[in-house]
Amino acid sequence: MDTREATGLTGRTVDLNSDLGESYGTWTLGDDEAMLGVVTSANVACGFHAGDALTLQRTCAAAAERGVVIGAQVGYNHLAGFGRWSIDMPSPELTADVLYQLGALEAMCRIAGTSVQYVKPHGALYNTAAVDARQARAIVDAVLAYDPSLPLIGLPGSELLAAGEAAGLPVIREAFADRAYTPEGRLVSRQEPGAVLHDPDEVADRVARLVTTGRLTAVDGTEIEVPADSICTHGDTPGAVAMARAVRDRLQAEGVSIAPFVTRSGGRSSGAAPDG
Amino acid sequence: MDTREATGLTGRTVDLNSDLGESYGTWTLGDDEAMLGVVTSANVACGFHAGDALTLQRTCAAAAERGVVIGAQVGYNHLAGFGRWSIDMPSPELTADVLYQLGALEAMCRIAGTSVQYVKPHGALYNTAAVDARQARAIVDAVLAYDPSLPLIGLPGSELLAAGEAAGLPVIREAFADRAYTPEGRLVSRQEPGAVLHDPDEVADRVARLVTTGRLTAVDGTEIEVPADSICTHGDTPGAVAMARAVRDRLQAEGVSIAPFVTRSGGRSSGAAPDG
Amino acid sequence: MDTREATGLTGRTVDLNSDLGESYGTWTLGDDEAMLGVVTSANVACGFHAGDALTLQRTCAAAAERGVVIGAQVGYNHLAGFGRWSIDMPSPELTADVLYQLGALEAMCRIAGTSVQYVKPHGALYNTAAVDARQARAIVDAVLAYDPSLPLIGLPGSELLAAGEAAGLPVIREAFADRAYTPEGRLVSRQEPGAVLHDPDEVADRVARLVTTGRLTAVDGTEIEVPADSICTHGDTPGAVAMARAVRDRLQAEGVSIAPFVTRSGGRSSGAAPDG
Amino acid sequence: MDTREATGLTGRTVDLNSDLGESYGTWTLGDDEAMLGVVTSANVACGFHAGDALTLQRTCAAAAERGVVIGAQVGYNHLAGFGRWSIDMPSPELTADVLYQLGALEAMCRIAGTSVQYVKPHGALYNTAAVDARQARAIVDAVLAYDPSLPLIGLPGSELLAAGEAAGLPVIREAFADRAYTPEGRLVSRQEPGAVLHDPDEVADRVARLVTTGRLTAVDGTEIEVPADSICTHGDTPGAVAMARAVRDRLQAEGVSIAPFVTRSGGRSSGAAPDG
Repeated sequence: MDTREATGLTGRTVDLNSDLGESYGTWTLGDDEAMLGVVTSANVACGFHAGDALTLQRTCAAAAERGVVIGAQVGYNHLAGFGRWSIDMPSPELTADVLYQLGALEAMCRIAGTSVQYVKPHGALYNTAAVDARQARAIVDAVLAYDPSLPLIGLPGSELLAAGEAAGLPVIREAFADRAYTPEGRLVSRQEPGAVLHDPDEVADRVARLVTTGRLTAVDGTEIEVPADSICTHGDTPGAVAMARAVRDRLQAEGVSIAPFVTRSGGRSSGAAPDG
Repeated sequence: MDTREATGLTGRTVDLNSDLGESYGTWTLGDDEAMLGVVTSANVACGFHAGDALTLQRTCAAAAERGVVIGAQVGYNHLAGFGRWSIDMPSPELTADVLYQLGALEAMCRIAGTSVQYVKPHGALYNTAAVDARQARAIVDAVLAYDPSLPLIGLPGSELLAAGEAAGLPVIREAFADRAYTPEGRLVSRQEPGAVLHDPDEVADRVARLVTTGRLTAVDGTEIEVPADSICTHGDTPGAVAMARAVRDRLQAEGVSIAPFVTRSGGRSSGAAPDG
Repeated sequence: MDTREATGLTGRTVDLNSDLGESYGTWTLGDDEAMLGVVTSANVACGFHAGDALTLQRTCAAAAERGVVIGAQVGYNHLAGFGRWSIDMPSPELTADVLYQLGALEAMCRIAGTSVQYVKPHGALYNTAAVDARQARAIVDAVLAYDPSLPLIGLPGSELLAAGEAAGLPVIREAFADRAYTPEGRLVSRQEPGAVLHDPDEVADRVARLVTTGRLTAVDGTEIEVPADSICTHGDTPGAVAMARAVRDRLQAEGVSIAPFVTRSGGRSSGAAPDG
Repeated sequence: MDTREATGLTGRTVDLNSDLGESYGTWTLGDDEAMLGVVTSANVACGFHAGDALTLQRTCAAAAERGVVIGAQVGYNHLAGFGRWSIDMPSPELTADVLYQLGALEAMCRIAGTSVQYVKPHGALYNTAAVDARQARAIVDAVLAYDPSLPLIGLPGSELLAAGEAAGLPVIREAFADRAYTPEGRLVSRQEPGAVLHDPDEVADRVARLVTTGRLTAVDGTEIEVPADSICTHGDTPGAVAMARAVRDRLQAEGVSIAPFVTRSGGRSSGAAPDG
């Protein structure tokens, strides 16, 4: 796929994505303004796990103004759990929920002069769709029905990306800046000690090496290969902005270009289509 | 406006609209399948006052299949009150909520091969926007930003239609089949006796006369003029389908054509634009 | 346990329970008035999977007036799925959610001159707590903290009843009137053909035999023993009331007394406590 | 009323109250731990405008541990607007919603070894009930049905306190530490400049004078009398804790005792009953 060749490891160009738009009414989360100055792709919440309508409108407007590409961060319909608890819901309802969220965010993109450029499931939906082929397929069905040229961001080796590829959707493989990996290339569970890395310098080193060599050191010291078209930096933790900036600065110091995997010029459809 | 000339009183052609898609999860409301066989315009709920995503998807698919035009029935974000309780919310939030709902329903229309063709506020939002210029304007701002060729259905003489007209939106005036009117052409409050008419024959007579002569008899016996481009028949009451069918049959017996105010061929944009 | 000896198989006295109070705002579900004339224990929804506050207030008032015992039908906090989709939520949140619901329903009981007399999880929470020891324990922790004399209704052999017994809570074993059983005494999954019985006469026969002999015929023809202190009749399906009445009439014709497992006189605390 | 004599102006003893428990799931609001070290009465949210169940459980436990009296901060059922938008809902639904919230919070108090000791409406419900006799009465009806000895906190001169007094409920008059007053003793609208005071020293001076003399200076310079049994300090603004501490320190420096208007020893019922 051209997109990956142009933006992935070989081209020493990489995308930085982060979750944004996750405030709700009176409750704010993260520093979206600051993160929009760092990342190239914004996974904007769609109102189901977080994100009231006005927050989505303003986040899309701010992203569009700065040229940050917008993706739909679709989640379970569950504010109480912030979409972080897996819900064993039927496929037709899940497909419909993804479609609903895609459309809602599209309206906010439309009035900001842009459009939804990719889809990335949030939280428990992301984790469940990594291992549950049925829920993965329900998400893919929604994207396919809505726009079969819309890329899907997910974990390399996940059921989600497998279902997306099988259906002909463009898929974007992401790596996590601040997470430890198992020797098999999976994320170390958050229940385990050392699962999350907190030192910005260490994280920046790690990401720079990953992007320039395609390799990183797993939790047990093994060297592993991790394909990554996009690097996810978290936006909702203390120090999130500082860490994202450290990653970006280090990559640039290493001569890596930071650019969205989707180019806005020419529109997403042509820009992100398999052969562009 | 061409639309009105073509479909309003002069042409003895009229639109029939009804609220649909108002089930939620396990709870069903109304007989949408049956109503889709009667009306020409479906005001489909958008998930805020009613309508889970799968219900919206199925309702839009069923409407599209039967050639029934789909409008966004936007409401207050309040399932507990079914959007029937006025909420004194700020304008930016209301505008964003309308945009969000428009987009969500648009996704369901899109995968059904059609698009949202008009906007009609629901319940308390309809009533509040009839008299509150601020909330009316907040709704109009959303429609204007989303698509300035999208018609707005409302009560003749309402703040909503005034704001819509002032902003250049096409406006569609509707009359209510089963409601009593004051001598001033307002709806008699539901708190008053006789506000709602229950006899299908009486309602059918009344609507036939209204459509063919532009007049009806107010609650005090006065003859009044009521402009009507579309006739609203309720879908969520017992006997709703029977009454809607009685109205449709009587109109057809009188030689009135039943047709949407928006023609699908050529798309909404050209069909409903201010000067055609 | 005295409660079981007094009301279970040996005494040819049995309780009939049903889910009530599951309407929400404009949406009604079931015929609560009619079911209150049939059952002896009302599992009243608590607002999380169903049941707006006014519905709960009215249902509790109506139950109290007829002398029907009220239990808290606690569920997942998810109206969209009617609590029928399992949610993998953390234990502290689940315990707190159960406490919240218990208290909310207690207020409605209190103003009706009664109190919450037992707890029965709803839908997916019931099914998950039957097999998931962690969620079962989270529910038990809530009941224990709230009132350790409050009985828990569940499936014989479930993790829920095991956790309840281990914690010293009174437990009530229930059988389902209209469900097929496996030879192991489990419910046949609703995905399987024949899982739900629809013929009122057949169901009435089956329940009468179960209550008088402690035995029923499993789906493969095997005779099995099923302990049952209470019989659950569904309230939200078409024909629900007719089937519940058929069961009640048959039991009475067989000389079985229909009575709550908790006696209201003397209050729940003394009536349902392990040794009175 | 004894309560007022013991704790109001004459005794130079005053209560400090603040809104707590207003986090929701992943979203936190305010610094409850710190505020519990300053105030004597905690208006704990009840889950309708804010406050997930686990937050309520923890807040009640923390308040009980520190001997801070707990009141039910009941609100409109509307997370999206944080209960800050007035909802024109019918009285029976509002009464039921207040009862539901009272019971839910009661469960959390009960397992913390205490009970709900007073009721204070939140946000738009507070403001609406100050001027709308119907909604005021609906709230009072709930408290009356639940426990007629439960005091109601409100604005002096409000419809809420008038309805409460007419019904025989104990009423507690509160003043706002950081709000400007009109010459008529009303709060200056937040839309007006100068409505909210931000300087902790100025606020502390003002409150000290109010508590020791019963007077404060209105926005136009007029001296007015403002009765106050309790002083409200806001908990959800930046600097909230610092301001609350400044108020408390100044009052203590002036020899004023800071104590809840309800004494926990002997229980609320006797402490707060109309004539002791």
